[in-house]
Amino acid sequence: MSAIHIIKIGGKVIDDPALLDEFLTSFSALQGTKILVHGGGKSADKLLLKLGIQPKMINGRRITDSATIEVVAMTYSYLNKKIVAQLQSKKCNALGLSGADGNLIKATKREVNEIDFGFVGDIDVVNSKQLVKLLQSGVIPVFCALTYDNEGQLLNTNADTIASEIAISLSNLNIVNLIYFFDIVGVMDMEKGTLINEITPESFLKLKEDGILTGGILPKLENSFSAISNGVHEVIITHFNSVSNLGSLNFKGTRIHE
Amino acid sequence: MSAIHIIKIGGKVIDDPALLDEFLTSFSALQGTKILVHGGGKSADKLLLKLGIQPKMINGRRITDSATIEVVAMTYSYLNKKIVAQLQSKKCNALGLSGADGNLIKATKREVNEIDFGFVGDIDVVNSKQLVKLLQSGVIPVFCALTYDNEGQLLNTNADTIASEIAISLSNLNIVNLIYFFDIVGVMDMEKGTLINEITPESFLKLKEDGILTGGILPKLENSFSAISNGVHEVIITHFNSVSNLGSLNFKGTRIHE
Repeated sequence: MSAIHIIKIGGKVIDDPALLDEFLTSFSALQGTKILVHGGGKSADKLLLKLGIQPKMINGRRITDSATIEVVAMTYSYLNKKIVAQLQSKKCNALGLSGADGNLIKATKREVNEIDFGFVGDIDVVNSKQLVKLLQSGVIPVFCALTYDNEGQLLNTNADTIASEIAISLSNLNIVNLIYFFDIVGVMDMEKGTLINEITPESFLKLKEDGILTGGILPKLENSFSAISNGVHEVIITHFNSVSNLGSLNFKGTRIHE
Repeated sequence: MSAIHIIKIGGKVIDDPALLDEFLTSFSALQGTKILVHGGGKSADKLLLKLGIQPKMINGRRITDSATIEVVAMTYSYLNKKIVAQLQSKKCNALGLSGADGNLIKATKREVNEIDFGFVGDIDVVNSKQLVKLLQSGVIPVFCALTYDNEGQLLNTNADTIASEIAISLSNLNIVNLIYFFDIVGVMDMEKGTLINEITPESFLKLKEDGILTGGILPKLENSFSAISNGVHEVIITHFNSVSNLGSLNFKGTRIHE
């Protein structure tokens, strides 16, 4: 098997049909072994509001109570099927998955401490053996942001984390690259106002100490370095506008490596 | 590969969590190669009404306009993931599928004649080669009632037909049995008020001529005989109360064979 590319999309690209279609065209054209992981964009919030349920967030994280998990799971699994059908029309042999399918991602419902996040799952294990068998059967796995637990309960799980855990689980078999497409061009040096082209574990520490990296990008970088320190070859953070470069993997963005 | 059982559930068993759980326990216990196909029960109607969309039916068939296909696809794909998660908790390695996944069931949007059925798909082909590869990868396929077309559009498709087309597509490889679980005990002789234990193509013609079979059961039987005449070994129509006999395949119901 050639190098494996794990590609995560979220944010605007999910909510804008034209952008999504452009992305899926580029994804279809990418040669080699690949896996897509997608978030839900704003679609869960929209359906919640239509059904008279007020979305609840604390520090940017969703509180997924029993009414909310139904709507979230509904939205994500439908979006997953829509993406798969679109990819198939572009001759990409996609197959849509949650963590429950094929027992691929087992999780545990987050313990209630100060905040009760509700039906949110923290990943225990990715079943890489089954995932490899699916890849060998000739399909392109497309994951939505759902896992499940021992009781058969679906759980809402951060799609960035799903992507990095899948990447880690396959990295003992092969060279694995993890590519995050966001609404940002990459990691910015907020002092100079320039893009940081690459970050290593050493430069990451220095950038943090110097206070150059702050805010929302930090959890994403922690996630990326967790992947790198667990065997993933390279993580790339880039804007979805770069998607036409997906085939060449030649992105304007930030490369994270050892 | 041993004989393959294609099992279809619909109606009340989908809408009642306790019945569904009992069914899934029995399905998990069934040995050998098996595929589950499920309808959507009344859940799509419920969500349509919650969203202020009036379900439209003509002669018992849904008119699936563009607003309706979204809600139907959402309901079916969510129900599919819920069933898969429940099966996994019962140690059954289920994997949820629409016809788009793995290009498994390609369909064509029904032509508009007197009635515009909207986004309803008539099946062109089941990709049995890919389906067999999935079975060989160790998963138990669970299909919802969605197919797709060349344009990447999801289509609402009768679950009975999906089950019989899957059964037919695998019947040149193996002995295939098709089992329909309904809200009825089997095919009734309406004159005598007794269950008809078996029907062959010859007895079917006679029963029709004598006017003993009428109404809603006729399309189901046409479907069953289409399966039989295309290589399926046996079709069984039975009540979901018989599900505890699933392991032994010893049902009170109607057996349809050559």
